[in-house]
Amino acid sequence: MKYPNGIQKVYKVLPSYGNRGMNLEEDLNVTNEYYRDSDIAIIYKKPTPITIHKVDYHSRKDAVITDARFTIPSTTDYNGIYQGKYIDFEAKETSYKTSFPLSNIHEHQIAHLRRIQKHGGIGFLIVRFTAYGETYFLSGDAFFHFLDSEKRKSIPRSYFQKYGKLIPIGLRPRLDYLKLIEVKNETKNEKA
Amino acid sequence: MKYPNGIQKVYKVLPSYGNRGMNLEEDLNVTNEYYRDSDIAIIYKKPTPITIHKVDYHSRKDAVITDARFTIPSTTDYNGIYQGKYIDFEAKETSYKTSFPLSNIHEHQIAHLRRIQKHGGIGFLIVRFTAYGETYFLSGDAFFHFLDSEKRKSIPRSYFQKYGKLIPIGLRPRLDYLKLIEVKNETKNEKA
Repeated sequence: MKYPNGIQKVYKVLPSYGNRGMNLEEDLNVTNEYYRDSDIAIIYKKPTPITIHKVDYHSRKDAVITDARFTIPSTTDYNGIYQGKYIDFEAKETSYKTSFPLSNIHEHQIAHLRRIQKHGGIGFLIVRFTAYGETYFLSGDAFFHFLDSEKRKSIPRSYFQKYGKLIPIGLRPRLDYLKLIEVKNETKNEKA
Repeated sequence: MKYPNGIQKVYKVLPSYGNRGMNLEEDLNVTNEYYRDSDIAIIYKKPTPITIHKVDYHSRKDAVITDARFTIPSTTDYNGIYQGKYIDFEAKETSYKTSFPLSNIHEHQIAHLRRIQKHGGIGFLIVRFTAYGETYFLSGDAFFHFLDSEKRKSIPRSYFQKYGKLIPIGLRPRLDYLKLIEVKNETKNEKA
């Protein structure tokens, strides 16, 4: 097949998909691919952590994992670099309408995000309320403020509306979360 | 069992192990654990990337992966944050005595490291020559200089000796590679 000059890479996003065609992970994957191809940021989702118990080596190059289990992740799912800064976040969808259950995020993922913030990285959450097709950016600071001042086991949607930012959904990039980040020139806890 | 006060966490490194008791991945794991516990840096090895073909759900919480394959990684194995900077590296051992075969590092891992450097991150290699128990730090710049000026398919040990730095092996941290990194206050390609 011949393509006319100037044709651009297709990001597997068709207009007919509408705003809720893909799940959050797929949206973030195409967005991060766009960021990388456009030289905006280098951000990847980490592979799913598993513990491998048995591998059959049919041949040198053909190893089949026949017994493995999913393991609880120690860190968040996404990290990378943007404007010279370390970026780290967790992304979750919820079908709940009024709040986001904190049980979706493991204790050590929260501890990890706190450490990242302390070391001068930019940590945050991306949370999608699937019932409304709304995807929020919630800064680490806003997230920790909630954890440290509230005893609730879920973050109300109103908290995201007030302290988070709605991420616009478009074609390219699909979910432009990076434009909601304010990169400061100086990191907070940089050692002199 | 009762322990006297002030006892410290044991890092699974016994003096009797000597200098070659653990492989490079184990050495890096205990080193990174030490860095995290000491609040020096937050660096993790990424999970091994696999493609899952079949999962048996015995129960809600007991999912067993029964068919999966290893996939070629798109990125390096290790990344994180140190002194506010994004850190990214690949670590490999070789049993070859005179050189490190470049076939150990995938093309897209090299491309990834180049991108990281371009975005102001700190990218490098850690290479161990097991025959000598020597572990070298090779900066991204020195690595790319070799790739761009040499046609050889392997990096001679002498190149590591001349342009790399030997990583000292100790108890805690086991492999103190971070102290060989010079963190510049300004990132190279920071966008204004």
